[in-house]
Amino acid sequence: MISVEEATELIQSHLYQPKIVVKDLNQSSGHYLAEDIRADRDFPPFNRVAMDGIAIKAALFEAGRREFTIEGIQYAGAECLILKDPTACMEVMTGAMLPMGTDSVIRFEDIEIKDGKATITIDQLKQHQNVHGRATDAAKGDLLIEKNTLITTAEIGVLATVGKSRIEVYEMPKVAIVSTGDELVKVSEQPKEYQIRRSNSHVLKGALSDMKVLGNIYHIADNEENMRHELSGILESYDVLILTGGVSKGKKDFVPAILDDLAVEKLFHRVAQKPGKPFWFGKNNTTTVFALPGNPVSTYLCFNKYIKPWFKSSMGAVPKPLSAILDRDITFKAPLTYFAQVKLTYRLGHLIAEPVLGKGSGDLANLLQADGFLELPPAETEFKKGSSYELILYRSI
Amino acid sequence: MISVEEATELIQSHLYQPKIVVKDLNQSSGHYLAEDIRADRDFPPFNRVAMDGIAIKAALFEAGRREFTIEGIQYAGAECLILKDPTACMEVMTGAMLPMGTDSVIRFEDIEIKDGKATITIDQLKQHQNVHGRATDAAKGDLLIEKNTLITTAEIGVLATVGKSRIEVYEMPKVAIVSTGDELVKVSEQPKEYQIRRSNSHVLKGALSDMKVLGNIYHIADNEENMRHELSGILESYDVLILTGGVSKGKKDFVPAILDDLAVEKLFHRVAQKPGKPFWFGKNNTTTVFALPGNPVSTYLCFNKYIKPWFKSSMGAVPKPLSAILDRDITFKAPLTYFAQVKLTYRLGHLIAEPVLGKGSGDLANLLQADGFLELPPAETEFKKGSSYELILYRSI
Repeated sequence: MISVEEATELIQSHLYQPKIVVKDLNQSSGHYLAEDIRADRDFPPFNRVAMDGIAIKAALFEAGRREFTIEGIQYAGAECLILKDPTACMEVMTGAMLPMGTDSVIRFEDIEIKDGKATITIDQLKQHQNVHGRATDAAKGDLLIEKNTLITTAEIGVLATVGKSRIEVYEMPKVAIVSTGDELVKVSEQPKEYQIRRSNSHVLKGALSDMKVLGNIYHIADNEENMRHELSGILESYDVLILTGGVSKGKKDFVPAILDDLAVEKLFHRVAQKPGKPFWFGKNNTTTVFALPGNPVSTYLCFNKYIKPWFKSSMGAVPKPLSAILDRDITFKAPLTYFAQVKLTYRLGHLIAEPVLGKGSGDLANLLQADGFLELPPAETEFKKGSSYELILYRSI
Repeated sequence: MISVEEATELIQSHLYQPKIVVKDLNQSSGHYLAEDIRADRDFPPFNRVAMDGIAIKAALFEAGRREFTIEGIQYAGAECLILKDPTACMEVMTGAMLPMGTDSVIRFEDIEIKDGKATITIDQLKQHQNVHGRATDAAKGDLLIEKNTLITTAEIGVLATVGKSRIEVYEMPKVAIVSTGDELVKVSEQPKEYQIRRSNSHVLKGALSDMKVLGNIYHIADNEENMRHELSGILESYDVLILTGGVSKGKKDFVPAILDDLAVEKLFHRVAQKPGKPFWFGKNNTTTVFALPGNPVSTYLCFNKYIKPWFKSSMGAVPKPLSAILDRDITFKAPLTYFAQVKLTYRLGHLIAEPVLGKGSGDLANLLQADGFLELPPAETEFKKGSSYELILYRSI
């Protein structure tokens, strides 16, 4: 049995090497950039009017002039006008080029217009005011977004701005989700008294889909010969295999032995943690295999603690560690890392974790009340109210 | 000009009334439940073995017996066995029904098996240990998930468990995203010197898509006649219209007047906030209209502060307020709510907000550095390090 730290390190040192694919801008959200994004021109590309009003040369205002003849209108999306009479002004619209011969913009709120003349009604003016100067945000060639960045809406705005209608991103691995366990029936079936419906596969498919990963669902009966045959085919067709069930000490827990038969190298089996102790991890030349204990909370913890970060790291992203503050004492004496389910609240910028104690690791309904797991280290046994611990969040805030 | 509070209240009092649609379980993530979800049977539906081992009657152990003849094996997914000899034991597998005539499970780790007999090697035993008792998680008919709940992976697990392969959810409104502004060209086009590419529409489409809302993109040139005609058609075809640009004081800012012509009732125009002051909101019998200022940061703020919560409230969800702690003093003197862009870090359960000051509200690249906006109220002018304020988060943590 290895520690949570050792398990994490082994998983993180066996990452997937993604290929590069091209996506349309509107399909790119949730993917990771496989190219650096640079400014294709200056931003703004010209001295950009930032307020509707008039543009003048500030020096004239400094010299005492308040009244300016309006020479024309500079619209957004129009070629740059040139002020012919240097003592006049130009009406200007937000987003327009600042007319040549002017350097400052005064808002309509601060002028009066009558008979083709604008009179300024304020006493102070800063040169370049209300002008968003060329290249102040970025100069042509500047690095705007680094490779390996997750594309969210903020990145989409910048990608659109620099003309990236098609974007190189990392291709997500193809995943097979395989449940085992003879007690499991389909969601649409009416279970017999001793049966339950499959839930893990759907949870995993949904969680993968949130990361833009396609997961295909399989179920294999607890029959050694059949399982060996089916898994052999699946290993050939997928980059990642996530199994649930069959990894513990039961008489039909064939998974570790069959993976061994199929030449999948075991990197670890059993982690000093609760829930999720029987977790198995390994790989062969083509496929990374996560074999999770079958109870729903163990599956969910292992996915969020280990598999999700593995996907992110495989895309080159650096996870941001989170933490939360316990709002109640917890005692846990076993020499295991205890992942306590917690409900989160925000109070004045503090992230408060209230333990939601379930009735056992099979208690799926308990996940509904909680927002994440608090990682309580094995070296301690008393976890005090007010202390902060690492948080594995599964509900976005 | 109205306050941010008044604007929020007006928007929240004009919600969309969604229809109900049915989705497949694997397509339901991100939607909001339109039905209460109840337990279709007890959970667990039987006294469930929670560890691989043997099942016995605890009273025998209490009476001093340590050796038990193994009468058979109770597998998961098999009908319930009955212990014939009440002094014997049954091997049991995780997930199986607890055999009749037994009440407690001892793990394989805590027994030795030889010649068909199991000898218990521990000194203490609790009755019902390692048994997940029938109905301890939920009894048949119990409410598990309330209507209006957002479906995430935790909910998917429970929906699968209770056999909901098809689920009633609220249908998201149909949204038209309309950009205006003659300076804007397509992402795939090479802009002339005085032009820029459209970014807001793609940002909005992505942000809507994150909420499972389909947004169709339109662009309308700054020509009054044409805009009136186009908007008239769009209003008839969509539940929601999000416009960007054309709402300020410029000579081509036709949007408010044209919406008025088209009998869209104005509920407010101009909010005492920075950025996003010219924000316009209104509706007619069929369509809710959000007309946002065209600069990217204003659009982004208005979407995250007003439109996203409007969608959530329309689905019956109750937003969870967030807050973060300023890590630097900010001075802001104008009598406006100031939405400061901030970068977030977690330190020991504290959510710390570091201001990321842009070079103006047009600075889209600045959004990349930040994770959200901190809402600094208009009644104050000095915002001190260590104080906490409401947070509008646009990057999931």
